[in-house]
Amino acid sequence: MSPKPRFDFASDNTAGCAPEALEALTHFNAGYASGYGTDAVSVRAADLVRELLDADADVRFIANGTAANCIALATLAQPHEAVLAHEHAHIRTDETGAPGLFGAGVGLIGLPGGSGRISATALSEALEQPDVSYRQSPAALSLTNATEYGTLYSAGDVRVLTGVARERGLGVHLDGARLANAAAGGFDLKLLKSLEIDVLIVGGTKAGMTPTEAMVLFDKRLSRRFDARLKHAGQLTSKGRFLAAPWVGMLESGAWLERARHANAMTWTLAEIFRTRTAFALRHEPQANALFVEMNDAALQRLRDRGVFVYRFLDGSVRFMCSWATTKAAVEELGETLAEIA
Amino acid sequence: MSPKPRFDFASDNTAGCAPEALEALTHFNAGYASGYGTDAVSVRAADLVRELLDADADVRFIANGTAANCIALATLAQPHEAVLAHEHAHIRTDETGAPGLFGAGVGLIGLPGGSGRISATALSEALEQPDVSYRQSPAALSLTNATEYGTLYSAGDVRVLTGVARERGLGVHLDGARLANAAAGGFDLKLLKSLEIDVLIVGGTKAGMTPTEAMVLFDKRLSRRFDARLKHAGQLTSKGRFLAAPWVGMLESGAWLERARHANAMTWTLAEIFRTRTAFALRHEPQANALFVEMNDAALQRLRDRGVFVYRFLDGSVRFMCSWATTKAAVEELGETLAEIA
Amino acid sequence: MSPKPRFDFASDNTAGCAPEALEALTHFNAGYASGYGTDAVSVRAADLVRELLDADADVRFIANGTAANCIALATLAQPHEAVLAHEHAHIRTDETGAPGLFGAGVGLIGLPGGSGRISATALSEALEQPDVSYRQSPAALSLTNATEYGTLYSAGDVRVLTGVARERGLGVHLDGARLANAAAGGFDLKLLKSLEIDVLIVGGTKAGMTPTEAMVLFDKRLSRRFDARLKHAGQLTSKGRFLAAPWVGMLESGAWLERARHANAMTWTLAEIFRTRTAFALRHEPQANALFVEMNDAALQRLRDRGVFVYRFLDGSVRFMCSWATTKAAVEELGETLAEIA
Amino acid sequence: MSPKPRFDFASDNTAGCAPEALEALTHFNAGYASGYGTDAVSVRAADLVRELLDADADVRFIANGTAANCIALATLAQPHEAVLAHEHAHIRTDETGAPGLFGAGVGLIGLPGGSGRISATALSEALEQPDVSYRQSPAALSLTNATEYGTLYSAGDVRVLTGVARERGLGVHLDGARLANAAAGGFDLKLLKSLEIDVLIVGGTKAGMTPTEAMVLFDKRLSRRFDARLKHAGQLTSKGRFLAAPWVGMLESGAWLERARHANAMTWTLAEIFRTRTAFALRHEPQANALFVEMNDAALQRLRDRGVFVYRFLDGSVRFMCSWATTKAAVEELGETLAEIA
Repeated sequence: MSPKPRFDFASDNTAGCAPEALEALTHFNAGYASGYGTDAVSVRAADLVRELLDADADVRFIANGTAANCIALATLAQPHEAVLAHEHAHIRTDETGAPGLFGAGVGLIGLPGGSGRISATALSEALEQPDVSYRQSPAALSLTNATEYGTLYSAGDVRVLTGVARERGLGVHLDGARLANAAAGGFDLKLLKSLEIDVLIVGGTKAGMTPTEAMVLFDKRLSRRFDARLKHAGQLTSKGRFLAAPWVGMLESGAWLERARHANAMTWTLAEIFRTRTAFALRHEPQANALFVEMNDAALQRLRDRGVFVYRFLDGSVRFMCSWATTKAAVEELGETLAEIA
Repeated sequence: MSPKPRFDFASDNTAGCAPEALEALTHFNAGYASGYGTDAVSVRAADLVRELLDADADVRFIANGTAANCIALATLAQPHEAVLAHEHAHIRTDETGAPGLFGAGVGLIGLPGGSGRISATALSEALEQPDVSYRQSPAALSLTNATEYGTLYSAGDVRVLTGVARERGLGVHLDGARLANAAAGGFDLKLLKSLEIDVLIVGGTKAGMTPTEAMVLFDKRLSRRFDARLKHAGQLTSKGRFLAAPWVGMLESGAWLERARHANAMTWTLAEIFRTRTAFALRHEPQANALFVEMNDAALQRLRDRGVFVYRFLDGSVRFMCSWATTKAAVEELGETLAEIA
Repeated sequence: MSPKPRFDFASDNTAGCAPEALEALTHFNAGYASGYGTDAVSVRAADLVRELLDADADVRFIANGTAANCIALATLAQPHEAVLAHEHAHIRTDETGAPGLFGAGVGLIGLPGGSGRISATALSEALEQPDVSYRQSPAALSLTNATEYGTLYSAGDVRVLTGVARERGLGVHLDGARLANAAAGGFDLKLLKSLEIDVLIVGGTKAGMTPTEAMVLFDKRLSRRFDARLKHAGQLTSKGRFLAAPWVGMLESGAWLERARHANAMTWTLAEIFRTRTAFALRHEPQANALFVEMNDAALQRLRDRGVFVYRFLDGSVRFMCSWATTKAAVEELGETLAEIA
Repeated sequence: MSPKPRFDFASDNTAGCAPEALEALTHFNAGYASGYGTDAVSVRAADLVRELLDADADVRFIANGTAANCIALATLAQPHEAVLAHEHAHIRTDETGAPGLFGAGVGLIGLPGGSGRISATALSEALEQPDVSYRQSPAALSLTNATEYGTLYSAGDVRVLTGVARERGLGVHLDGARLANAAAGGFDLKLLKSLEIDVLIVGGTKAGMTPTEAMVLFDKRLSRRFDARLKHAGQLTSKGRFLAAPWVGMLESGAWLERARHANAMTWTLAEIFRTRTAFALRHEPQANALFVEMNDAALQRLRDRGVFVYRFLDGSVRFMCSWATTKAAVEELGETLAEIA
């Protein structure tokens, strides 16, 4: 009989929220507040996001990452146009076609590239395609950092891609569901404002909050009537303070970054275990909080039989995610389990 | 100089969340849980909603009321069809056209009726209109209980309307953003399953939770692939337990209903103050947690000058909302302020 | 027994197409042509439309007036915004919610105004409404000339309305399904380019062609990737020459305007008959090709019993339309029928 | 200097319309007719389509093939579901994402298969994928006959695929833009009604008509409020007779099939020329009116330098299309040109 499945390495959204988030939520629960993001907590959280990025940008808090990314894309590309994204980007592979609803049929063109990073050559080739009436031509570029494969774009990498995109008049979206892990891995957040990005989603949920994402509009012209845009898309929250409070708690305390550092460190510890104590090869260089491991079905099943629930990913490898909640003990225990099944 | 605006009577979403909700959120934060509503907390909360309604229905938790209602409507009516709703229903007047996004241009036909209740005659007349190609013919009826005007449909009222709708093959949606207040006002929730309703939204947010609504699919044929439908609409939450936990806290403790009883009682106390200590007439019979008062602009301004922020509503009256958080002291203090401005 | 219904006064789309259109269609049928509007006939027709308007604008031909208008609106307003139009404008009352599909839920706000012309006061009031998140704020103004009530806006009337709209940053659409009749009634087409209009639909179908409308983009920035926009909306025609040929036939010969003059003249003759030989009052001043007549149900039924099929319109009057095909004899015969039923 | 480009082999939509279509259009132009497809010509044309298929189905005429196919797909699959189609099907590769507009973000899953025919194995595999919330699961199967590669599905081939689809509850769409060529190639149209197809688009435009396609709803439950659906999608034509008349002309005379036989025969003659007089290999078995030829860029350029405009297709080969208008002389002349460039 299999033990109760353990979801601790299945994803970084299987953890609860960090104490700093919960305390802020409790703290800011007191009293009355005006609705729909006009309250003082939302204003303070937005200031903190601006401070984090050292940028004078418009900020909104959105309960759902799928929606946040889709609304960003719909803001940058018209329905008869397309968004360029990595072929394994979340918006292409895991969102049940949501960009098409929010974007009224907007297209998504997949670009190849190793370890989740879009190849500059592939991007250039895509942009050289002539505009024709029978195809959705690109109007926006979507990047993800940290990538789906737990790797990072450096600021330089981003600049190369967004520079090429900008030259052709494209808008740029950055899906930062795991931006905290990218920052913890060395990505300088204060450079973002200079990287030709129009709309950035900063992940709160995976960083250890209750469900909330921060949308950052570097190009303020895009934010005209944005609350109405969010309401129209079912994403303007009446009790907005509850989307903002975790940000205050996590940013003021520094926990947003610190806890991502922890998640990354646990990942690297696990990587070391894989390298030194197992025969399972790592597929990508672990730069954030995800490991991708070559493991056949039999081994995966043995792992699951021991209660460890993890997913086989799009590239065929098996994904192990760490989060703010991953303990050293759990990593060690997983190491032992891995040794057993090898 | 005006004092800092007080939002305590502005809406029932300006309050925080009730202790029972917050405690459950804290309690269920511990440990790992599978994502996207497949976790044990979500299952338990769904069971509790079924128990509340004494109904074998499918239940989902959704972070946003606008979206919950729009997805329900899009499930019941096709884009070239229309939904019949009260002319002052929230989905028609306050949702920035969101039904049109989720429903790909689905129509909304407003029906008249006193105090927020659809007139049975108006409904019948609307249903007698011939199907023609140049108009969106009705495919669904949307009711709201408690209504926008703080009044109630009785079970009998609902049955008359949904019976007529059913005869013509329409689906039925019930917006229960304030269903707790309706229940506290005497509406028997266990009758709902027999009232020919296909999809019900049970309000959590206004009932004293963090942002969460329960979608109840009485007609289970509609729930096929519903998680995919929610994901496509940007409404499937990865850390689903945080939408479910407040329901466990509020339903298991009975607070969901008890705190609505309190909100209603505060409203009736305030009504009594208006009747006995002011010259402001009440516009509608207060059956739930909202009062609508005839008040000219000068009086409204005097009230706002004293810090009380309330809205002039669609019917021209001024709305005072009570919530789970409204205290007897605040009602008394408002009574004194009202006496001053009279 | 009722005679076979006659549709000659039911609408201006119950007539066939004028000889000039059919001859051109036959003429340009010969030989091969490149597809999707890139052919020489389409180019020539576009030149003729530009010449008609004395304007350097982009021109496309679209098979369907509903779609042409909806695509124009979707180009001018975003989904969370609204279009202001006369409350009885075709796009609001007769298009089965099509603007909502093409515009992903874009809003339509109806404005009052006598005889189908938007009241400047009503427009100003609508534009004074504050931008709020719970409502779709106006991004475009849609006018119709000739109006739904067979009346005209003068160039001055248009300028007043579009001037106000422009000041507030709105785009402007003109539905010219009956622009030929407006021109024949004295509206100077060469002024259009100076009237702050972004997108104009020039009616071909009602002017005596097979199904085809000309979309004129005065603001050429809007026409970027427009063929792709049309394809995405199911409105890029492979054998594009067949949408263009009737325009060549009707514009080169002058028939587009001449036949509208005839339609208007028949209307005015019929108006004279109504005034002098019947007791039925005219509702609006007939300035184009439609008459609106006060007629009770009994009289309307007697008319239909004699085979004359006409519609009761939104304002309660009965509409009689003349077209290029209406003959003097038919008008006389109708006059006699009217005398019989009086 | 290059001669004026000749489009005679570029596509089957570069030809004009056949005499039988034009004569009918001229004939039925006379007199008045009721609008929006309610006229006698539309009724007669629908009867003829039913007769052609020996089927009691609902029939509509639609001006645009893109829209006709997209509306069919939107009728069969919900926005959070997907349509399975050949990876090179027109709706996936050439329609600028139009299915996503009409289907509010409906998904399209490409299936492999030789020469444009979906592989039964690939279909089965796609249907074995589990329903998950993060992916659009298939709700419909879309076939094309004749295929994009000028090959045919036999009735048996279709039955195998639709049988598998039906077992899993999918709806079935058949894009018959070149159904006449399929029929001329031996496909028995009278079997269609027994092949588990819900919605069929019968091509008129490519068969030699002015722009018009026939939509055939074998499953009449789908046709409820279909005129409203068409209007909402910008595809209900006021002067509907002009979409119907060519069908009367082409079907009553037998020209629809006869002229497709001619197009196929010209194709086969051209194939013979390729085989016997050139070194260019054919890529697919020519069963209808298209040839796909292996030809390098230099040879293609030499061909274009001689005025022959043809396209390189998705599979890398060069496509030569014949139509009703292709003459024996033109084929011979092309043969000589091919000999020159070899």
